[in-house]
Amino acid sequence: MAAVTSNQEKAGPSICGYHFQWLALLAKSLLELARQAKKLGEDDPRRIINSLKAGLSIILVSLFYYVEPLYSSFGVNTTSAVMTAVVIFEFSVGATLGKGVNKMLATLGAGALGLGVHRLATLSGKTGEPVVIDLFVFAIAAMATFARIFPRLKAKCDYGLMIFILTFSLVSVSSYREENIQKMALERLLTITVGCFITILVNICICPVWIGEDLHNLVALNIEKLGIFLQGFGGEYFEMYEEGLPSKDRSFLQGYKSVFNTQSREENMANLARWEPGHGRFRFRHPWEQYLTIGSLTRQCAIKIDVLNNYIDRQIQPSLEIPSQVKEHCTMISLECGKALKELSSSIRMMIRAETTLLHIGNSKIAAENLKSLFISGLWKEADPLERAPATAVASLLLEVIQCTERISNAVQELASLAGFQNMESSRSLEQQQESNQRIYSINLQNHEITIGE
Amino acid sequence: MAAVTSNQEKAGPSICGYHFQWLALLAKSLLELARQAKKLGEDDPRRIINSLKAGLSIILVSLFYYVEPLYSSFGVNTTSAVMTAVVIFEFSVGATLGKGVNKMLATLGAGALGLGVHRLATLSGKTGEPVVIDLFVFAIAAMATFARIFPRLKAKCDYGLMIFILTFSLVSVSSYREENIQKMALERLLTITVGCFITILVNICICPVWIGEDLHNLVALNIEKLGIFLQGFGGEYFEMYEEGLPSKDRSFLQGYKSVFNTQSREENMANLARWEPGHGRFRFRHPWEQYLTIGSLTRQCAIKIDVLNNYIDRQIQPSLEIPSQVKEHCTMISLECGKALKELSSSIRMMIRAETTLLHIGNSKIAAENLKSLFISGLWKEADPLERAPATAVASLLLEVIQCTERISNAVQELASLAGFQNMESSRSLEQQQESNQRIYSINLQNHEITIGE
Repeated sequence: MAAVTSNQEKAGPSICGYHFQWLALLAKSLLELARQAKKLGEDDPRRIINSLKAGLSIILVSLFYYVEPLYSSFGVNTTSAVMTAVVIFEFSVGATLGKGVNKMLATLGAGALGLGVHRLATLSGKTGEPVVIDLFVFAIAAMATFARIFPRLKAKCDYGLMIFILTFSLVSVSSYREENIQKMALERLLTITVGCFITILVNICICPVWIGEDLHNLVALNIEKLGIFLQGFGGEYFEMYEEGLPSKDRSFLQGYKSVFNTQSREENMANLARWEPGHGRFRFRHPWEQYLTIGSLTRQCAIKIDVLNNYIDRQIQPSLEIPSQVKEHCTMISLECGKALKELSSSIRMMIRAETTLLHIGNSKIAAENLKSLFISGLWKEADPLERAPATAVASLLLEVIQCTERISNAVQELASLAGFQNMESSRSLEQQQESNQRIYSINLQNHEITIGE
Repeated sequence: MAAVTSNQEKAGPSICGYHFQWLALLAKSLLELARQAKKLGEDDPRRIINSLKAGLSIILVSLFYYVEPLYSSFGVNTTSAVMTAVVIFEFSVGATLGKGVNKMLATLGAGALGLGVHRLATLSGKTGEPVVIDLFVFAIAAMATFARIFPRLKAKCDYGLMIFILTFSLVSVSSYREENIQKMALERLLTITVGCFITILVNICICPVWIGEDLHNLVALNIEKLGIFLQGFGGEYFEMYEEGLPSKDRSFLQGYKSVFNTQSREENMANLARWEPGHGRFRFRHPWEQYLTIGSLTRQCAIKIDVLNNYIDRQIQPSLEIPSQVKEHCTMISLECGKALKELSSSIRMMIRAETTLLHIGNSKIAAENLKSLFISGLWKEADPLERAPATAVASLLLEVIQCTERISNAVQELASLAGFQNMESSRSLEQQQESNQRIYSINLQNHEITIGE
């Protein structure tokens, strides 16, 4: 008996402990979740607003179900408006508009085709009808599924093709039992259109997220990251620090690495941005394609920079024998290319034509020529070739970076002329003109007052 | 009059010509479409089969609508089975299974929650009911929309969260007017489950496309592309062609470029592959994560190779002064690394442990040591440093390629032990054992016959 009690005593605390452990684990993971949610919200507060907008658009659409006169005019199909609101609501205006337009057009087209097939199928009697319908459903579903792999269709109307198959199958199959299939198809089209419009309105009118603007900023940020690296590289590698740069904090040199993984994101963003109407500084047919060109040139430059970075990472510091002139020229190339890239980045961001980029590229080219003539002068012949190898490799890579910078500069200039970036002066003179207009206006106003006063 | 006739005559052919031009343009673009479709089909014939499978699964599900006893047990909700079949059918088994399981679980959870909210809302009377329902719909839709941005949830159950919002909104909102909401929710769950099962069965049973196998082959192919480049590079750069390699066809050196753009595709494939059941050589919990590690190391190596390729592209051929020993060692490093990578690739493809990879890497390391001591010996001191720069850069890059190859080799070996790749010998001995078993079996059979004969 005593043994049993002691066994129970032993078991008691251990089960309690087990439960306690389990609860503690649950509380810990809930806390972790909350912490993560807070971080995600802080990283991009638009996400929180977006969630509230999604809830709001569903509620607005659901009013059609609750309010009597609206409900009776749309019928049971009102639920498909709710489904539409859930499915097409996306983070950005471009994605929501793209899905909405796809959904409406596909529903219209597939509904009409479904009605046509129904008319054809009724000719073959009640027994033959499902066979004819299924033959058409099979053929059209198979063809539309195949169409979804065409690269151009996949990028622009993958969702529309799916909705096309869905609506066509639904209308065709339902037509077998539904008495008034035309009324049903029309009601469906109407409710979906209403659902789309409400969702798109909520998405555009309340704190809209323009994906085109995000693409614009992403491309500018990527170029800036390369610029930051290059401005720091020379000093870091040859230990000739410019004033103001921290000597051992190398984290600023790692920013460029994220540039490698943005290609598919950029392509997706450019596809969606085409749907967006003109807004702010962007007109309807903004040259989004050109951002992809700039992005791909940026990644090519990032590859060179990654190799340069290896020379810092692996601590292959050149020996002290490197002539100070070589150091100077290399640092100059890196610094000037960095300045050029940073100016290009802010030129994109502010949509103003870059002015001193060509000057910076010119400076780096002069440094490159000086570097080449230094090498030709045989200044370095007595040094150990192996010790010299990393430094010559770095020099040769820097020459390639100049080419990359020039290519990015050309692409940004093309963007500037396609998108009509303003000149720094013209933007200044515009400001001045506005100011002087303001002055003339206020003078006129005074005159007018004087006239009235008289 | 004559003038009018001549005008008509003039107008006649030009309108005809316009129509004719238009028709010709249409015919041309249709032909172009057919040509493109043929090419897409030939590139991957599985796409054609996939389209037919999609049509078939919709037809099979539609039978539930046509056949009387099935229809009466499922009711009007049968159309949602058709919608399910359209929406969850995807190219690969992993994607279809993932969507199907997400859809079924989300419908179950959201339906149950919707019924609970309905019960709660009825407590507040007919006027208060829609307000209570909408409060819940708003809160839950907003929370679920926010949850979709958590990276882990986004990768695994983004679709499930959308279906959760959809079903919950649908059940909650419908409960305001629907008399028997429990029956409706249950029927919906049932039809969706039936739709999912039929679609998944069609997808798995008829020519299944396993996305895990595609990932496996993609990773192996990418490594092979690097191997092909490295095997050809030495000969191409130093113009010391091995026997059998074509001298001026450099297209084989460009294959590696596609390696850069596969990261997001690989990640997506690994996410979907986790849903797939064991099949062929892959068991259920195959280490798909490890393929991502190998893929990322492959891309790091491709960056070095891209820089090497620049030296071929830009025709920076080294002058003839390069000592033949340097050429030999560089070519040896490149060739041996290429062989190692190609062996690793076929080791993955055949799921057999690589045997001679370490030997090849060892050879390239010996060549690297020889190259280093050549440089130290000062063999090259009298040459012009600028002419030497490209060659020293190439040599230095090749040393980095050895490190990359070794890292890939380690990652593949880890994959081999995680996934239980067989040894070449054990696989051979297994074959031999099977052969000898066969022999013993036939001898036994002969003995048996003899016994019977006796």
